[in-house]
Amino acid sequence: MNFILLSGGSGKRLWPLSNDVRSKQFIKIFKNEDGIYESMVQRVYRQINASAPNSNITIATSKTQVSSIKNQLGNNVDICIEPCRRDTFPAIALAAMYLHDVKGISENDTVAVCPVDPYVEKEYFSTICELQNEAKNNSADLMLMGIEPTHPSEKYGYIIPETSDKISTVKEFKEKPDVQNAEKYISDGALWNCGVFIFKLGYIVKKAHEIIDFTDYYDLFDKYDTLEKISFDYAVVEKETNIKVMRFSGYWNDLGTWDSLTDEIPENIIGKAVLNENCENTYVINELNIPVLCMGMKNTIVSASAEGILVSEKEQSGSIKSYVDGIEQGVMFAEKSWGSYTVIDAQDESMTIKVTLNAGHSMNYHSHECRDEVWTIISGKGRTVVDGMEESVKPGDVITMEAGCRHTIFADTELQLIEVQLGREISVHDKQIFEL
Amino acid sequence: MNFILLSGGSGKRLWPLSNDVRSKQFIKIFKNEDGIYESMVQRVYRQINASAPNSNITIATSKTQVSSIKNQLGNNVDICIEPCRRDTFPAIALAAMYLHDVKGISENDTVAVCPVDPYVEKEYFSTICELQNEAKNNSADLMLMGIEPTHPSEKYGYIIPETSDKISTVKEFKEKPDVQNAEKYISDGALWNCGVFIFKLGYIVKKAHEIIDFTDYYDLFDKYDTLEKISFDYAVVEKETNIKVMRFSGYWNDLGTWDSLTDEIPENIIGKAVLNENCENTYVINELNIPVLCMGMKNTIVSASAEGILVSEKEQSGSIKSYVDGIEQGVMFAEKSWGSYTVIDAQDESMTIKVTLNAGHSMNYHSHECRDEVWTIISGKGRTVVDGMEESVKPGDVITMEAGCRHTIFADTELQLIEVQLGREISVHDKQIFEL
Repeated sequence: MNFILLSGGSGKRLWPLSNDVRSKQFIKIFKNEDGIYESMVQRVYRQINASAPNSNITIATSKTQVSSIKNQLGNNVDICIEPCRRDTFPAIALAAMYLHDVKGISENDTVAVCPVDPYVEKEYFSTICELQNEAKNNSADLMLMGIEPTHPSEKYGYIIPETSDKISTVKEFKEKPDVQNAEKYISDGALWNCGVFIFKLGYIVKKAHEIIDFTDYYDLFDKYDTLEKISFDYAVVEKETNIKVMRFSGYWNDLGTWDSLTDEIPENIIGKAVLNENCENTYVINELNIPVLCMGMKNTIVSASAEGILVSEKEQSGSIKSYVDGIEQGVMFAEKSWGSYTVIDAQDESMTIKVTLNAGHSMNYHSHECRDEVWTIISGKGRTVVDGMEESVKPGDVITMEAGCRHTIFADTELQLIEVQLGREISVHDKQIFEL
Repeated sequence: MNFILLSGGSGKRLWPLSNDVRSKQFIKIFKNEDGIYESMVQRVYRQINASAPNSNITIATSKTQVSSIKNQLGNNVDICIEPCRRDTFPAIALAAMYLHDVKGISENDTVAVCPVDPYVEKEYFSTICELQNEAKNNSADLMLMGIEPTHPSEKYGYIIPETSDKISTVKEFKEKPDVQNAEKYISDGALWNCGVFIFKLGYIVKKAHEIIDFTDYYDLFDKYDTLEKISFDYAVVEKETNIKVMRFSGYWNDLGTWDSLTDEIPENIIGKAVLNENCENTYVINELNIPVLCMGMKNTIVSASAEGILVSEKEQSGSIKSYVDGIEQGVMFAEKSWGSYTVIDAQDESMTIKVTLNAGHSMNYHSHECRDEVWTIISGKGRTVVDGMEESVKPGDVITMEAGCRHTIFADTELQLIEVQLGREISVHDKQIFEL
């Protein structure tokens, strides 16, 4: 079996824990069975591996997420990188061609496309496995999963099946409705469209060639930026006649807002915080190293990170996006394939950053045109290479690098350093990468 | 005229803006007439200088506040330092002896003792000047100011005057009552005791010698730690028969809690913050360099500093102290006579600090036994002295100092640096000071 996990999303709706480089699926706020915090992408990846061992999992995503994915799932994870954002149809077509041309998957093999961020129980993935078996047995060209609605939501598209059987042909699709129409659809037996699509690989290879003029994966990759932005629902699903839906009545939550997210968090506090006894239905998720004290708060979400601090009445947290759009701020933290960094001080002509390298990892060998840098090692052991010269480093060692100087650091153990950047125009884009 | 300003107080009730080294009177949250933020101590100092030009102002305080006072009022401010905390009677006695023996003030001169932190209009200080004139003319040995109560508060002691005249002899003192008794006192014409005492210097010199066995200021200073902790009200005021009170009906607020403090702040936002349109009666005071976003909050105070983040329903903010007592945290920011510092990262064996030196100032020449330090200059110009060697420094320069090495820095212009401290036992007490 094959899974394509679509990992998209912006960092606005779960600000300040998500930002331009960390989408919501990378926030570590769920506990796994060992009591260790994991992110949505780690949870879904673990659940698929448990439900369908030995299946191929490919993550379709943009360049900006590659570091976070490798940081959280390891360097061996299979990633199909979209050169730019082009909505779900081009993304699924590219990932399908990647399976076909790069991984050599047979056209007769089945593929399930899933969003990377639903909060579900393991039955969700066993249902997707069932659907792959149905597709394998030619039950229909395209199979969907439909979630049994719990309320007349305006946030989802609706699928209206012909019958109330577990698997039914699809009668009709409905766009996101108002509450009144949603109620009507639900009384007609409608299901929520949760973005899960199952087909044989050959089906989507054929569709891709019908809709886009290209030869193979490499050609499609090269012309990706010329493709029309179009959703898979619009380009394929709503035009398909040989289509079935399987209903799923298990637990499903799409965690799009702070309000829905806090429904799934097992504790009221993650990170350093104190709630006094007069707090009710209040959640603190604090990634800073300083404490939060809440007194007498009700139905409130408090979240703090290096990006900022959110204090929101729970229900209003859904409308956060437009306010966050108005906040001008550079990226203050990021996960990289080699570790992570946090901005701890930002001035006009300097920026101070705390860098953590995971054991056995190293940065790219790189230089900056417009800034000098100073590293002070604060923990761990490793080796720096500066303009070709390698040296061992330990806590207290200081490395100064002028603009133009090529540099990297290897972490032999987990290693932390304080980096002071100095220059008139400090930008993440000022970076030239070299072979070492 | 002489003023003794009592500057005491702990940093718990206005946490996180106050801490163990910054009492509430040093928080800059009021705007002066030029629109510049000033602290309570700056406001009171400015108001006295305006109401009674050419008077002597002496600040009676502990060692821990000296740096903050010099930072905010300048190096020429007159400070009488208490060697340790011994309540208001010893503090006032020491300050009186300081005026008498060090400053050479005549025993016939009048002195007003005032708390440093009431939020008042300038009429308050003209009333104190009137009281000093009354004392000069021998109206009574001891004169008090009594605030006309606005509500039956349980937070203050009450003074019951004989008559309702502007100046009256005192009939009786009452300890902090419950609301019911407070109502009764108020119907009897009682006033709040606001801790303002006026007398001729000779009066208190005599009282001090009656109660304490000492010769002069220097002797009293030396035996200060052996003195009994006793309040001026208990030791002197309640035993005095020749005592009068002047009523004050102008504006007075003691700003003891976040709730009362926010009543005096002209804007809902100080620092970086956004309130959405559904917020009501909500205040953000943010000293961090990251934004706060509030959505739909009502009657709420949000305050953030390097110490932590408070989110409190307004009325409950009064009971903050016991919760703050439970938070274990080193001092994360401080004002020094030469500038200020903020902890920006704290690890087990390292601490990273941002230091700002004001132009023309320098640190003490000092060393540490148990930690190495690295300075990276990020702005400004100055000179370092390291083990006797002076060198000019500019942004990008790095200075490494091993444990034991003596060092200081002079700021020729305002100068900022990032200091990384490295060692097993990092403590503010690990500091040896040398003559340069």
